[in-house]
Amino acid sequence: MKSVNTRTLWRAAVVCVIILAILYIMTFHNCSGKLRQEVPTTQTRLAGDSPQRPLPPPGPCTCADGAEMLKDHIPKDQYEKLVQRRAKELQQHKARTTSVLSRLLIALPNSPLQYPIQGFTVRPLIPTPIPGLALHAGQRSSYKVSLNVSKGVLTTQIQAEDVKVQGGGGTRLVMESSSLVILNEALAKVSYTSTVYHIHTGDLASFQFENHQAVFPITIKQPQVPVLHDMGTDISSHVSIATKTFLRYPQLKVMLSSLRRFYSNIEVIIADDSFEPENITGEHIRQYFMASSQGWFAGRNLAVSQVTTKYFLWVDDDFLFTENTKIEKLVEVMEAVPELDVLGGTVQGNQFYFSLLYEEGEELEGGCLHRKSQDKFQSLPGYPKCFLASGVVNFFLARTDAVQRVGFDPQLQRVAHSEFFMDGLGSLLVATCDHVSIDHQPKTGHTDNARYGSFRNPGRSDVDFKLQLHFFKNHLKCVKYG
Amino acid sequence: MKSVNTRTLWRAAVVCVIILAILYIMTFHNCSGKLRQEVPTTQTRLAGDSPQRPLPPPGPCTCADGAEMLKDHIPKDQYEKLVQRRAKELQQHKARTTSVLSRLLIALPNSPLQYPIQGFTVRPLIPTPIPGLALHAGQRSSYKVSLNVSKGVLTTQIQAEDVKVQGGGGTRLVMESSSLVILNEALAKVSYTSTVYHIHTGDLASFQFENHQAVFPITIKQPQVPVLHDMGTDISSHVSIATKTFLRYPQLKVMLSSLRRFYSNIEVIIADDSFEPENITGEHIRQYFMASSQGWFAGRNLAVSQVTTKYFLWVDDDFLFTENTKIEKLVEVMEAVPELDVLGGTVQGNQFYFSLLYEEGEELEGGCLHRKSQDKFQSLPGYPKCFLASGVVNFFLARTDAVQRVGFDPQLQRVAHSEFFMDGLGSLLVATCDHVSIDHQPKTGHTDNARYGSFRNPGRSDVDFKLQLHFFKNHLKCVKYG
Repeated sequence: MKSVNTRTLWRAAVVCVIILAILYIMTFHNCSGKLRQEVPTTQTRLAGDSPQRPLPPPGPCTCADGAEMLKDHIPKDQYEKLVQRRAKELQQHKARTTSVLSRLLIALPNSPLQYPIQGFTVRPLIPTPIPGLALHAGQRSSYKVSLNVSKGVLTTQIQAEDVKVQGGGGTRLVMESSSLVILNEALAKVSYTSTVYHIHTGDLASFQFENHQAVFPITIKQPQVPVLHDMGTDISSHVSIATKTFLRYPQLKVMLSSLRRFYSNIEVIIADDSFEPENITGEHIRQYFMASSQGWFAGRNLAVSQVTTKYFLWVDDDFLFTENTKIEKLVEVMEAVPELDVLGGTVQGNQFYFSLLYEEGEELEGGCLHRKSQDKFQSLPGYPKCFLASGVVNFFLARTDAVQRVGFDPQLQRVAHSEFFMDGLGSLLVATCDHVSIDHQPKTGHTDNARYGSFRNPGRSDVDFKLQLHFFKNHLKCVKYG
Repeated sequence: MKSVNTRTLWRAAVVCVIILAILYIMTFHNCSGKLRQEVPTTQTRLAGDSPQRPLPPPGPCTCADGAEMLKDHIPKDQYEKLVQRRAKELQQHKARTTSVLSRLLIALPNSPLQYPIQGFTVRPLIPTPIPGLALHAGQRSSYKVSLNVSKGVLTTQIQAEDVKVQGGGGTRLVMESSSLVILNEALAKVSYTSTVYHIHTGDLASFQFENHQAVFPITIKQPQVPVLHDMGTDISSHVSIATKTFLRYPQLKVMLSSLRRFYSNIEVIIADDSFEPENITGEHIRQYFMASSQGWFAGRNLAVSQVTTKYFLWVDDDFLFTENTKIEKLVEVMEAVPELDVLGGTVQGNQFYFSLLYEEGEELEGGCLHRKSQDKFQSLPGYPKCFLASGVVNFFLARTDAVQRVGFDPQLQRVAHSEFFMDGLGSLLVATCDHVSIDHQPKTGHTDNARYGSFRNPGRSDVDFKLQLHFFKNHLKCVKYG
């Protein structure tokens, strides 16, 4: 029995080995198959999703009830050519404001690739290592990855000993190694150098391994030199007063003396387009004479262009400073919330402000704009009685550089105010507070007032002009004044 | 033998089954182990790489040989307080110019999560579906994902039938389902709504499944209303001429008459800070009077603030228009390359231009700036004889809005030119062409010239002032003038 048993067991063993071998191979094949499977199925499931997709163009926007349809204000005979010129300018605007950096990119799942999705910024023409590049794949006999860019070149410092490198110094870099560790060392040493100078654009890098592809953005940006303002130590080195006058010297003088009661040496900048210019004398006063009746926004632009302080306070020439006109309090808020650009107060207790609701709309038609009076957003951190808004009253403290960036359109010669905040929508952060106020001077029967009124109050033609301007300049279809 | 054989084989079979059972379990355990392993090992291997990392602060920059060390020009007794004020302004500058959108984000490998890495932009306070969210995991009895944000809320429209949703309307959304397909339907319907109004900021969304985490950016941006210029149909509606004069009326008049020989009705804007102002008469001329000797850049700023055309041509008051002063040719290049902001020509055959090499440097010390005369970048597409540069000569065509965005610092009263391009580095795209030129008027012995020179030529104090200004305003450690 013994001999039989051993023989039997020996035979059993042989049979086993064979069956086992087959079974083991099958099993292992299966399960390593599972490893590979994960991805192809994913890939097919994602047929629709490429890692890179253009954003859909915006559809037409809807005009609010009672909105002004701007095209109705364009003379019929000019309309066609005007719309052509507008379309051309919009294309230029887009070329200036968009790049591959606004394209939608999707990170695909179950990819063995590691890469930077945000924050990789290079200076033009300067070689910069790409952070976070790596491959983490299962066991292979050899690992091969490739990188592609279009506006620059790729290099790696690795010695070509254990890793095969092709295309170093070009737009396509291919690296292959039998060791994953060594390949990742090579990837960690890959640098990107833009071949073009530009102040702000981008490139898209494509990173590939077998059937996996990842696309990630490269920001090419010339760093801006900071432009900082020395605030100095007292209010007159923080703020200048800016105003525009036209035919109202008596009011202007009253305003100035009310200012001097509280601020003796703060700089005042006066833009003046009166017919018979009169010299305003006094310390810390700079008066600028324009060709007569150049207009409201041209004057504002001139005054702001001459400010040398970090902030300026805008006042009308018929305002009256009171003990509640505490400029320091407005400065305090601006300094505490540095992102703010414009901070409005109240005029004779009237805290006027509005929000602007804007939809880009369809390219040919243009956008829709809705001004909502007394509509505001959240309150300022630390200042529960100050609120963000899109536009404020004619009495505001502003960052000089921010307002110069937007500017007051000199084409607007008479009644114009919201127009500045429309041009600045999206580039000025605006807020309103009710704890700083200024007064209006009582209306006088001064002789020039009638004459002044005849210039100030817009006729129908002015309104048409303004709506035509919004149609072209702001690429709008309609404006609702609420 | 037969009976023995069968018995033997039977025994063998039994033994096999047992060994196989054990082996198979071991093998399968191993290989399904591989499936699970792939990620933990990856995770540990990536210990250093979290998907979110702050960018390293820039180190100190190196000053080129012969560079001006700016701190040496600050009076010792003012230095300490000045540096404190500068540091504070820099922090405000950073608060205005950076957000989570500049933080470095890394996509980790072998993650079953799919998500948008770029291009997901929302308007403040407006609900927006998040594109591309999905989970692609192997078989599970139940699938549970979570999303976290900080500056907004998350919602999904799905019916809570087959998917369990927690935290809808809050900053953390958790969804669980036994069906991967249904979970992905729910993910496709997730919307983000910012809870704060801001013109341009960002949020970071964290997307989680088991031990996998992905972080992706959400851009919160108030769309800007376009500000387009109607070019009209002729050169005088494309371009205005801007100049500044001081004590040189004879030269100014010669310049104006030379202009009129070639351009009869183009608008001219003159900023004038002479002591005894003289009215310049003539059609399409606008003259602005400043307080006397306000200075060079203040005058430039004033003139530019009054331009209503898309472009303006800067000329000095002693230039001379010739048949080679073809403004149309400069306009043609600007229109063909819409990203351009400033395009210089040549003055009396001298095509002056320079590049600016800028390193941000370390926070307390400041940056390093190197001006390299006659250094340029690549040529313009389609215009092989025009090249990008950082700054150009005193004769240039510019986009009015772009130059107003940077501005000429009114604090610079006398010799100043490069300073404008320093302030504009990174925000103005500048180029130079040699196919459009203007001449200088021959030097005259005019009486005012001596007096003019005494104002124009800087004394030592002016140089100090300028270097002090760069130290604070541009946050620089040194400037090399090459």
